[in-house]
Amino acid sequence: MSQQQTEPAEIWKKRHTAAHVMAQAVLEVFPDAKLAIGPPIDDGFYYDFDLPRSLTPDDLAGIESRMRRIQKADLPLQRSEKPREEALAYEEQRGQPYKTELIHDLPDGETISFYTQGDFTDLCRGPHVASTGQIGVFKLDHTAGAYWRGDEKRPQLQRIYGVLFDTQDELDAYFVRLEEAKKRDHRVLGRQLGLFVFSEDVGSGIPLFLPKGEAVRHAMETYVRDLQTRYGYQHVWTGHLVKEELYKKSGHLENYLDAMFPPMVDPDGPTFRLKPMNCPSHMTLFNAQMHSYRDLPLRYAEFATLYRYEKSGELSGLTRVRSLTQDDCHIFCTPDQIEDEFSLALKLIREVLDRYGFADYYVRLSLRDEDPDSKYVKDDERWNLATDALRRALDGNNVSYVEAKGEAAFYGPKADFITRDVLGREWQISTIQVDFIQPQRLGCSYIGEDSQQHTPVVLHRAVTGSTERFLGVLIEQYAGAFPTWLAPVQAVVLPIADRHMEYAETVMTTLRDAGFRVDVDRRNESVRKKIAEAESQKVPYMLVVGDRDAAAGTVSPRQRGGKDLGGMALPDFLTYLQEETAN
Amino acid sequence: MSQQQTEPAEIWKKRHTAAHVMAQAVLEVFPDAKLAIGPPIDDGFYYDFDLPRSLTPDDLAGIESRMRRIQKADLPLQRSEKPREEALAYEEQRGQPYKTELIHDLPDGETISFYTQGDFTDLCRGPHVASTGQIGVFKLDHTAGAYWRGDEKRPQLQRIYGVLFDTQDELDAYFVRLEEAKKRDHRVLGRQLGLFVFSEDVGSGIPLFLPKGEAVRHAMETYVRDLQTRYGYQHVWTGHLVKEELYKKSGHLENYLDAMFPPMVDPDGPTFRLKPMNCPSHMTLFNAQMHSYRDLPLRYAEFATLYRYEKSGELSGLTRVRSLTQDDCHIFCTPDQIEDEFSLALKLIREVLDRYGFADYYVRLSLRDEDPDSKYVKDDERWNLATDALRRALDGNNVSYVEAKGEAAFYGPKADFITRDVLGREWQISTIQVDFIQPQRLGCSYIGEDSQQHTPVVLHRAVTGSTERFLGVLIEQYAGAFPTWLAPVQAVVLPIADRHMEYAETVMTTLRDAGFRVDVDRRNESVRKKIAEAESQKVPYMLVVGDRDAAAGTVSPRQRGGKDLGGMALPDFLTYLQEETAN
Repeated sequence: MSQQQTEPAEIWKKRHTAAHVMAQAVLEVFPDAKLAIGPPIDDGFYYDFDLPRSLTPDDLAGIESRMRRIQKADLPLQRSEKPREEALAYEEQRGQPYKTELIHDLPDGETISFYTQGDFTDLCRGPHVASTGQIGVFKLDHTAGAYWRGDEKRPQLQRIYGVLFDTQDELDAYFVRLEEAKKRDHRVLGRQLGLFVFSEDVGSGIPLFLPKGEAVRHAMETYVRDLQTRYGYQHVWTGHLVKEELYKKSGHLENYLDAMFPPMVDPDGPTFRLKPMNCPSHMTLFNAQMHSYRDLPLRYAEFATLYRYEKSGELSGLTRVRSLTQDDCHIFCTPDQIEDEFSLALKLIREVLDRYGFADYYVRLSLRDEDPDSKYVKDDERWNLATDALRRALDGNNVSYVEAKGEAAFYGPKADFITRDVLGREWQISTIQVDFIQPQRLGCSYIGEDSQQHTPVVLHRAVTGSTERFLGVLIEQYAGAFPTWLAPVQAVVLPIADRHMEYAETVMTTLRDAGFRVDVDRRNESVRKKIAEAESQKVPYMLVVGDRDAAAGTVSPRQRGGKDLGGMALPDFLTYLQEETAN
Repeated sequence: MSQQQTEPAEIWKKRHTAAHVMAQAVLEVFPDAKLAIGPPIDDGFYYDFDLPRSLTPDDLAGIESRMRRIQKADLPLQRSEKPREEALAYEEQRGQPYKTELIHDLPDGETISFYTQGDFTDLCRGPHVASTGQIGVFKLDHTAGAYWRGDEKRPQLQRIYGVLFDTQDELDAYFVRLEEAKKRDHRVLGRQLGLFVFSEDVGSGIPLFLPKGEAVRHAMETYVRDLQTRYGYQHVWTGHLVKEELYKKSGHLENYLDAMFPPMVDPDGPTFRLKPMNCPSHMTLFNAQMHSYRDLPLRYAEFATLYRYEKSGELSGLTRVRSLTQDDCHIFCTPDQIEDEFSLALKLIREVLDRYGFADYYVRLSLRDEDPDSKYVKDDERWNLATDALRRALDGNNVSYVEAKGEAAFYGPKADFITRDVLGREWQISTIQVDFIQPQRLGCSYIGEDSQQHTPVVLHRAVTGSTERFLGVLIEQYAGAFPTWLAPVQAVVLPIADRHMEYAETVMTTLRDAGFRVDVDRRNESVRKKIAEAESQKVPYMLVVGDRDAAAGTVSPRQRGGKDLGGMALPDFLTYLQEETAN
């Protein structure tokens, strides 16, 4: 089922060439423009410019029509190479300081290439299509601010985004998708549905969950927790901070410092750090007891909120946050158990992705490369053992996967699950990583059958990744209309008149006592208005109750979207709900 | 049902006088001893000394026999007063620097009194018994290190503890209780039962919960969460840190700084603080939406781990920690709703205390004093309204309470629940506090029936206090033998021979699928040894399974402690377990 990752597809070359065409057009309008970088991206391309003034929508239209003229001229792209000094002199002479900096940063001995079309030349590694006439169908979309090299202390540039596809149909479909994505934007829906808010008093990137949002996150975590228990995982609790010293031992202070919140420094005591991950804590817990091979595999799972100091410019709703609650697990096992444990984790992940409606997924299996100078731990035997175990488990479970050489973590191979949502966007959700190194650094050991000390292998595993990010993805996946088992309010009782209030409360209490999230709409409003409100809140069931219901002990459920289920006895509706929400 | 708090009981005077007698004896042995403080405490007294060398057990015996001699001499205690300057000169002249410091710290105009027995005089406010012959039955118990004024930067002193009661029987009973308490010590049981550990790699005062401990804390939190939902509370999630600026606004930075972990300082961004409490976060969440009087009362509950920088010398097992998970709630209501909301919280707390077997409790109702210069917010109308509401609710719910004048928080009156455990020790567990101030400082408001803006009253409420501390109390209350609904492992299946393993796994899976925590003891050991192990782990049910059980689909449950329930079909045992663990 494995495929090798291939060369850049033709569409990437088109998008890349279009970026050059855009730069050429921009220079026609702003001869003093300084060029930064202009890569192809999903759905199109962008280019960052340092310009004498802010761009207007009219500028964009002007640049676009100049691009169409260059496209029509069908100028051939020609590659050339220059020695380092000559390349530097060339960029300095024509006043392109960002390009000069890029050349300075290239390693010695690297070929320095340029691509030229007509009177425009750009420093570029390529590849490109043969001529500007072949770039396909495009449209300039929007502009945004961007820092040079993503660094808030460097100059701010203007980024122009373009969308580009092979055909007009594809381009049109993209904008339809974009429109749909806007309607599904989890940041907008999150506020409309009363799920979460951000507050400048608390800090960027730290979502605060209102009761409805908390209800969904609790349902998500309870589901994974129960499932993990059924799969033989054990849950632990290790808090939110550790002594900084522990991250010196584990190597995180050296390799992961940028992602950490600033230290808590007490001149008279140890320095503490918020946890950016759980591994050292779970290994510390493992070390707190003696272990024999008979205890293995040992699977420590935890829903721990981790803190990562993402740059404030990179934060975005729930999908890029500073506080993230991982459904994290560390599996301590012997090398022989890797295949079975990986296979078990695969099964669990597939069950969860199915439950959430992500039927469409594949695995990216990241392996080391063969370069003898690479960062990878030198231990052929272990690498081969682990890689073979992972491949066998993937094949054995009929999971389709692509292999990515050179993409592994330095400590071992890993498998990432890439899913597609209803709009076809890819999300990396679950991950399983093999680790030979950290357990060694932190002194984990067990007594083997041979009565000797051994270092266990550790599998790092996350199912939905983080509750926050996955909830953001789910809101867009469902357009806010959560399936009943996950909905913040699963049913709302709508009394027709005041005299039905008592019965409405009885219905609510009966369903609540069975564990369902049910409200009564007590407002003095028409039923029509209450239904409209429940629809806008995307509540799965509306239970209108009037004289007949109160007398007969029935309800007449109306499904979200309008379907009437007809009158039924309250216990029957309860059974109906239980069946619908069962796994 | 209310009682006023009374004057110090006779036994407190005896214990206080005994402390003086001990100081007199110590000065006989160490004429250069510097005296710090010597108060009466529960069950006895202590005194802190600055001594030229460390005390040995022999010293303690010597001091004790000197004390008995002083007791026999029946020296009268005489009170005298000195003007400030004279008192200072007196202590300086006899070389007692700690006493000098104490006098310096006394407010101007305060009477400075001394008590003298024989040739010994001590700075002291009293009161005391009339003579050293009346101090009762005592025994010196142990010594400990203590910092002057509890401050790690001040000199370390030697503290001698004495136990003292009216009669020999009471003294003997105390030591029996002490012995029992040692057997129940949650720190020892926590390790034996594999519930939690501490690690120097993580930091003092931050317990790490092993799978069994996590199972108990999860059961505790799930129980309170479900109950809160039934009582109409809503759960929210607000993370573990906020911008320091928020605590400036709320006043915590000024009043609560010592209890906070050091700040996280970024020269290019805002400073963050770990949350020592949830109130400002819940008020921020409240402020994120508009509210009308129709939305009130609004009850925001959260199981949030808070971080408090307790001095490392004061940390103790789970009962004094730096990471504590409060079952916290903030109720936003109108002044008219205080009584009903307080009453509802009372009911919930009583239900929880009953469930945990704390039938014996009373409430300490802390009120302001009448002193016009006191710290209390000046607003007679609100104070009277709130105090009356609390009294009415306590009376209406038949809760016995004592009133403590001058013990209220500056922001309003409060009710603390004091429970007694099986050893008669008192623990303060639940609390409900009325707050007029913080909602104002943080700008909370709602639109009233009069269409005007109003500031809500906030009730702060915790049921079990913190999960960690309450678990520590519970372990001692149950001596580690948790009731079935709370036990980390509720039943263990014990196959007699290897051929019963498959059936044992079936039994486990059946019970696990119904939500119970069940293990199989797969070791190759005798059933007798497996039972002994399960008893030592205090597992409520042991299910020995052999040929007959496997053939008939039965189990023969044996209760913790030895009682046999006789053979029954597996589904019948499941029903039995469900009934036993139901609320």
